[in-house]
Amino acid sequence: MTITTESPMDLPCAPAAGIPGLIELQSVECPDTPAPNSVLGKVALILQAFSVDDDELTLSHLSRRTGVPKASVHRLAQELLELGFLERAGASYRLGMRLFEIGARVPRTRALRESLLPFMHALHSATRQTILLTVLQGAEIVFVERVNSYGQAPSLSKLGGHVPLHCSATGKVFMAFGPPELFETAVRGGLTRLTPNSAASPVRLRAQIDRVRADGHAVEYEEVMQGFSSIAVPLYESSGRLIAGLSVTGTLQRTDIPRFTRSLLMTKEMIESSRAIA
Amino acid sequence: MTITTESPMDLPCAPAAGIPGLIELQSVECPDTPAPNSVLGKVALILQAFSVDDDELTLSHLSRRTGVPKASVHRLAQELLELGFLERAGASYRLGMRLFEIGARVPRTRALRESLLPFMHALHSATRQTILLTVLQGAEIVFVERVNSYGQAPSLSKLGGHVPLHCSATGKVFMAFGPPELFETAVRGGLTRLTPNSAASPVRLRAQIDRVRADGHAVEYEEVMQGFSSIAVPLYESSGRLIAGLSVTGTLQRTDIPRFTRSLLMTKEMIESSRAIA
Repeated sequence: MTITTESPMDLPCAPAAGIPGLIELQSVECPDTPAPNSVLGKVALILQAFSVDDDELTLSHLSRRTGVPKASVHRLAQELLELGFLERAGASYRLGMRLFEIGARVPRTRALRESLLPFMHALHSATRQTILLTVLQGAEIVFVERVNSYGQAPSLSKLGGHVPLHCSATGKVFMAFGPPELFETAVRGGLTRLTPNSAASPVRLRAQIDRVRADGHAVEYEEVMQGFSSIAVPLYESSGRLIAGLSVTGTLQRTDIPRFTRSLLMTKEMIESSRAIA
Repeated sequence: MTITTESPMDLPCAPAAGIPGLIELQSVECPDTPAPNSVLGKVALILQAFSVDDDELTLSHLSRRTGVPKASVHRLAQELLELGFLERAGASYRLGMRLFEIGARVPRTRALRESLLPFMHALHSATRQTILLTVLQGAEIVFVERVNSYGQAPSLSKLGGHVPLHCSATGKVFMAFGPPELFETAVRGGLTRLTPNSAASPVRLRAQIDRVRADGHAVEYEEVMQGFSSIAVPLYESSGRLIAGLSVTGTLQRTDIPRFTRSLLMTKEMIESSRAIA
């Protein structure tokens, strides 16, 4: 099966998967990491070895990326095939449909996506840019829903994809308004540059976050991907807990940013007044 | 977190999760089934015990639904919590964010969803009904993408949800145009009625499928859920292999069906001529 998904115009700036310091940080090949002892730990590594851009991986790829010996990967992969968690693709493996089914049922993301999609569509109509809904997962933000025109979204914002906190607009929103320890976590993780614009010093990052806290929203210029910028706002549940980030992302001009920021802030207000997130 | 997802109007006819003969066939409590011996087999049962409508399950629920003894469920759940595959919800468990991440990367569904979403939006604009994209998974069809107006979709069409082949319009499309053994598989699985309208005899089902083959599309009147009907067409990849079903579902009047069928057939033609599924 060959399916046309992204237009070629998205691709030139997209970091290649598996290159250290770029986007797929956790699926970088890591032969020196000791493999976990438990069956489940190994299985988790195997399933997480597939990045957003990997349609299929060979046994050797899986072994190199996980640090699990080939014989073990092979044995576990056989079981995962039987369970529908992996599928065969010639001599390689793909993530299986069964995982899509289970993943689509995860309540935290399912409820957020279903309740916020109508607002995301309205915001897309107002801006014609890519609208992204993101949640915090460890020290990264994960894309859980996306609304965009055909072929227009930056390729790294695929659902289930993630970027580090310190360079994305939503990540800065989480650092400004979320748990205070996130800043330390991000700094400890190493402020890897995705582009020459990414903040690489804790001092510069702290200043940016103070600015976000003062403004109530974050703006990022080509810090995740050259040619693309984002504006993000925090979304709260009624208890006051920060639950997600909503952003407008695209080949934004600095002159557009004020207008898109107003649309984004109005959408946030509509979401809050509709109590879509109770 | 409480999030408003479906409007109450969807709910009265929705079959309750876990009631035998209704929708969540595989998560029916089955204490008599012997538990599998392998760790992975048990883990798969635990993760699949969560239906589309289960936000959280207790240890007892999980043990009853899987047939795995409580002590084993508890031990495995501890490991799944550490891996982010489960999350705590008070004394209960939820499917974890990590599973959403992995599930969103499954290439078969991801590529289909991304390439067909624009056409689904256009079809939704033309019909104002729920548009569903489904694929075959064993003897069931699984919902992989949905476009609908806020609160309007039948609650059982949540992403990652599934219905048996014999009563859904898309299921009949797969039986009419897919692998010939599907008919036998469906009959062997027992033609469980979801509503009084569901075909329960192989003879009636065979006649319906012959009709679908002659018409090129399937229509179903309240066979999955009272008050709701569907029209479905097959989608092929360029090799000629049937790859997905596309349907219009809603509180359809018989007088609307011809018009919606034309919109659906035109969308199928647009998809095929655009070569979105190469």
